Amino acid sequence: MAACIFCKIIKGEIPSFKLFESEKVFAFLDIQPLSHGHSLIIPKHHGEKLTDIPDDQLSEILSVTKRIAAASGATDYNILQNNGRIAHQEVGHVHFHMIPKPNAEEGLGIGWPAKKTDMDVLKRLGEEIKAKM
Amino acid sequence: MAACIFCKIIKGEIPSFKLFESEKVFAFLDIQPLSHGHSLIIPKHHGEKLTDIPDDQLSEILSVTKRIAAASGATDYNILQNNGRIAHQEVGHVHFHMIPKPNAEEGLGIGWPAKKTDMDVLKRLGEEIKAKM
Repeated sequence: MAACIFCKIIKGEIPSFKLFESEKVFAFLDIQPLSHGHSLIIPKHHGEKLTDIPDDQLSEILSVTKRIAAASGATDYNILQNNGRIAHQEVGHVHFHMIPKPNAEEGLGIGWPAKKTDMDVLKRLGEEIKAKM
Repeated sequence: MAACIFCKIIKGEIPSFKLFESEKVFAFLDIQPLSHGHSLIIPKHHGEKLTDIPDDQLSEILSVTKRIAAASGATDYNILQNNGRIAHQEVGHVHFHMIPKPNAEEGLGIGWPAKKTDMDVLKRLGEEIKAKM
């Protein structure tokens, strides 16, 4: 995608603090970090949402993410991948955030508005999703 | 791990609304969902944090997560994996949340306390992390 900022970073047309590169995966530091070590791990294959990326382009992402988490020295951290503007996605190329969580103030803030458990609804929903897989 | 609630779910000792199972991966509905379709995708291999899971046990996780996201019908959604209590991890067995984000009220709440960009700090940090990978 000619206009995609992450495709340009992969090609080296925009500089980045690169951490890792393989045939399928590219990783670099987020330059507006939530915490020290905040990194982005992306498939080289351009796609906006997770569902747009072929399986074979996804298989290495988590092992690279794991290596970066370990190398960052973080003990507590969040892995986050947002799909859609309402879900806080800012760049339209799939990216996984590795965000160290050193303390309550720095790193990802999480809101958890849990719903009430409704076993009947869940049973139906489970059958529906399974049927579509 | 005898005491792990997710290991018991994998073994069928605790019931779940199972969505998918393979040799390495198990997926089921979260019974305290943040939104309709909130699912959990886990490696069968017991480990507390991402860094505790062998690479070969991670390679299928995202393709399964993708299939569940598609089958849920969600267009906007967050993939989240928390490591450590301060990072909002509640069960000590690695789990990936697939959380549909249908509107501003339901689904994952995200706080984003971005730091100022400091190119010198980032350059040093990038070199440090690369050296440890």
